[in-house]
Amino acid sequence: MIKNIKINDDDDSVRDLQTLIRQPSISAKNQGLVECADLVAQIMLNAGIDTKLLYLTNNNNNNSTEVEEEDNNNNSNIPSPPATQPSPSSLLSSPPPPIVYGEVKSKSNPNGKTILFYNHYDVQPVEPIELWDKNPFSGNIEGNYIFGRGAADDKGELIARIKAVEYYIKKTSDVPCNVKFIVEGEEEIGSVHLKEYISLYKEKFKCDGVIWESGFVDTRGRPIISLGQKGILSVEIISKGPCRDVHSSLAALIENPAWSLVRLLNTLRDNNGKILIENWYNELRDFTDEEMSLMEKEPFDEDALKKEYGISCLVNNAKGIEVKKAFAGMPTCNISGLVSGYVGEGSKTVLPSIAIARLDFRLVPDMVPQIQFERLKKHIRKYQSSNSNNNNNYNAASSNNTTIEIRFLGAEPAARTSINHPFVNIIKEAAVEVYRDAIINVSSAGTGPMYYFNKLLGVPSVCIGGTDISNRSHSPNEYMRIDLLNKTIKCMIVILEKFAFSCY
Amino acid sequence: MIKNIKINDDDDSVRDLQTLIRQPSISAKNQGLVECADLVAQIMLNAGIDTKLLYLTNNNNNNSTEVEEEDNNNNSNIPSPPATQPSPSSLLSSPPPPIVYGEVKSKSNPNGKTILFYNHYDVQPVEPIELWDKNPFSGNIEGNYIFGRGAADDKGELIARIKAVEYYIKKTSDVPCNVKFIVEGEEEIGSVHLKEYISLYKEKFKCDGVIWESGFVDTRGRPIISLGQKGILSVEIISKGPCRDVHSSLAALIENPAWSLVRLLNTLRDNNGKILIENWYNELRDFTDEEMSLMEKEPFDEDALKKEYGISCLVNNAKGIEVKKAFAGMPTCNISGLVSGYVGEGSKTVLPSIAIARLDFRLVPDMVPQIQFERLKKHIRKYQSSNSNNNNNYNAASSNNTTIEIRFLGAEPAARTSINHPFVNIIKEAAVEVYRDAIINVSSAGTGPMYYFNKLLGVPSVCIGGTDISNRSHSPNEYMRIDLLNKTIKCMIVILEKFAFSCY
Repeated sequence: MIKNIKINDDDDSVRDLQTLIRQPSISAKNQGLVECADLVAQIMLNAGIDTKLLYLTNNNNNNSTEVEEEDNNNNSNIPSPPATQPSPSSLLSSPPPPIVYGEVKSKSNPNGKTILFYNHYDVQPVEPIELWDKNPFSGNIEGNYIFGRGAADDKGELIARIKAVEYYIKKTSDVPCNVKFIVEGEEEIGSVHLKEYISLYKEKFKCDGVIWESGFVDTRGRPIISLGQKGILSVEIISKGPCRDVHSSLAALIENPAWSLVRLLNTLRDNNGKILIENWYNELRDFTDEEMSLMEKEPFDEDALKKEYGISCLVNNAKGIEVKKAFAGMPTCNISGLVSGYVGEGSKTVLPSIAIARLDFRLVPDMVPQIQFERLKKHIRKYQSSNSNNNNNYNAASSNNTTIEIRFLGAEPAARTSINHPFVNIIKEAAVEVYRDAIINVSSAGTGPMYYFNKLLGVPSVCIGGTDISNRSHSPNEYMRIDLLNKTIKCMIVILEKFAFSCY
Repeated sequence: MIKNIKINDDDDSVRDLQTLIRQPSISAKNQGLVECADLVAQIMLNAGIDTKLLYLTNNNNNNSTEVEEEDNNNNSNIPSPPATQPSPSSLLSSPPPPIVYGEVKSKSNPNGKTILFYNHYDVQPVEPIELWDKNPFSGNIEGNYIFGRGAADDKGELIARIKAVEYYIKKTSDVPCNVKFIVEGEEEIGSVHLKEYISLYKEKFKCDGVIWESGFVDTRGRPIISLGQKGILSVEIISKGPCRDVHSSLAALIENPAWSLVRLLNTLRDNNGKILIENWYNELRDFTDEEMSLMEKEPFDEDALKKEYGISCLVNNAKGIEVKKAFAGMPTCNISGLVSGYVGEGSKTVLPSIAIARLDFRLVPDMVPQIQFERLKKHIRKYQSSNSNNNNNYNAASSNNTTIEIRFLGAEPAARTSINHPFVNIIKEAAVEVYRDAIINVSSAGTGPMYYFNKLLGVPSVCIGGTDISNRSHSPNEYMRIDLLNKTIKCMIVILEKFAFSCY
């Protein structure tokens, strides 16, 4: 065991993080992914990690390409995207970006446990770009902060893990347990190929526990150890009216598809956040007594959240335990994008021919994305037919003049690791040692592909990381705190040690 | 009187129209207006018309600037934009674009009647630009069609009138009646300064009848002589949520301003086109018996309209006389623009901090735009307070987390010239002579500043022109038909002659 772990400011973690931030890697735009994967691989190799780029097919003329042929076991429990809908990846002309895979075998403990770090090198788009104080890819340092898209989510977290392993190797020429890295390039677009990667490389990825790519530290400096993730269903709803944009004087005669879209959207969710789609909540289960008691103890600074975002109260006016229940376990329906007609400079009296909404639905354990998608489609069909058949307030005009189409954009099921798994306790003990205190959270409100690790690899996954709770991930001026970067490196070192000597 | 009016293909009307189309003049973007005014003035001068650029102030160092000081008579009946709202023009850094004013005194009939042609040299924006087959400013000719933004609305119509006067001058070295031209540069943004121009130059603009800037020819080649225009109220509704874009996992806690916007919009209009704002229809008056009998006779090719726009039925499933009543006299509420969040390539799980809708309300005679705007504001206030006070289905969350703001963008009252005015009959006779048949329409569904001419100058206004009913004005691939351009020139010549010898 290493005594007196000391992360020095002259370590190159900050410099390496800047290098990664300065390489744009926006999966939504298929921008800079391979370049970023190469950079990550280089940093891992420099750290002493045996590193390879993995691909789904062997059509790539890349020396480090490696395809293992494995049994494709029966994964019929894993919901797939609907077959009739194109997946976003099928729209891309290039093959899926590689996974950067890393491995360090423990010399002293080769038959011991294996820990797997799951991270991603892709980032969210930077829009609205005008709200950034600096170039989103500057990696600019101001005091304790490194700014840039991906600074926290997830390049900062990734660097912390690599540097923890590097520190260990440099100090001891070994690692206390076997270590694996999976660094993917499509997390921000729903990890569209991760399930395939895990199926294909199942033997290679074998491990005893997964440290998740992200983890928050609260305003009082306590890491939030999160045991689950919500799922997601992302769709686009397209309302089509006249075959081209029309002079708005024709609004007296021609139905506007933006009105149809507004009316439909208004049937999806009430003012209190409740989703109004039939059977939407069928699979929603109550929290267990243990989860409830954990949530009761869990601190949640409502005032800090409100102050941070300039709001005066929360959805459904939730307070106390209701806030925590909603955050960890309430399905949501969010409008992530709306567009129709003209909102540029000046005004344009146009009746648009099309109106589009993007929605993301967060899901909770036991909700199957494909089933939820079918429920949504049924809702829309019902809405359209009620518009054409009901002679009271609705009539044929709306449904015949405008048609609603729905497009599947992506989905992931929710996942939760049991509070009672010994892996959870190891992480908690390490966190308390480094941060003095730690919070166990039943589930994050965010989404990731945890479900595939838990189900396909059959191991527990736990989120722990060093991302300031107000880090502005997915927003302008995203940052990583340097003090937390260093603390995370230290925490990962302690986890490696405690994990090596655990006996579950 | 000129016998055997013959408009030759070697007339330069087509060439001059191409010249005008090729000069972009988008008032919404303050683009190319002065340049276009200069071109129009040049074409008018070449036609033998005494032409000047008029400005609202004498601060412009332009030799042709002329400001007449006139009594500002009491115009208290004319509704003004709300004083507390900035007018779009105040947001522009440059002064209002000039009016191109033209005049030809009749040598043979100097004390006779004066006809005034009202037109505009500005055009609508060209978006969505990707739907144009060619550059929107190409002025490209394909057979009988000249394509380009403004080809019909209103550069084609303007050229027809100038060429009619030019033809007369060339043939007779005179005009049969006094002729005036007002060609403004802000029609497409609501003629924001025309009222001021008319007040300031009231004496100069004195006339006995106004030929309006536009007029359609139906699918059977009959000109539609329209006697009125709907008014308009254009607004922007801005829904604001958290102080910046947020990761959409926070949708469980933070209200999304796009939802507030959708809910509000949904309270404005029902599925049948009925506006749900309290007292909205208070000033709506029934059509007179004469108007009704005119509408009953008026042809309206519903099937052609449906085919043209690819729709299968009309708003409120209207048929027959109901279609004509709606088009001429139904107030509308149209969404001309919607925007929030991200709808670019890929997907972005964002909860946007802002959502915006642009609306235009068409108004009918006796509706005062400012009063309608107050009714809309009251509706929004009521909506917001019902959201905060009603404990049953609504709660404080929505209204406190999101705020709705409304911005006044522009307004014009509606206007109608009486069917019984002798000026109407003169126009009809001329049209029948040229086109063999003509249709009298109670009111256009579109909007223009006719109200200010009718009220400030105290004269009748009549729309007659040569714009093909499917001309795609305000849409991609707008065109003017060359045969109709020539027929309109001929029709304007006949109007000049009949008007000169009329005795109302």
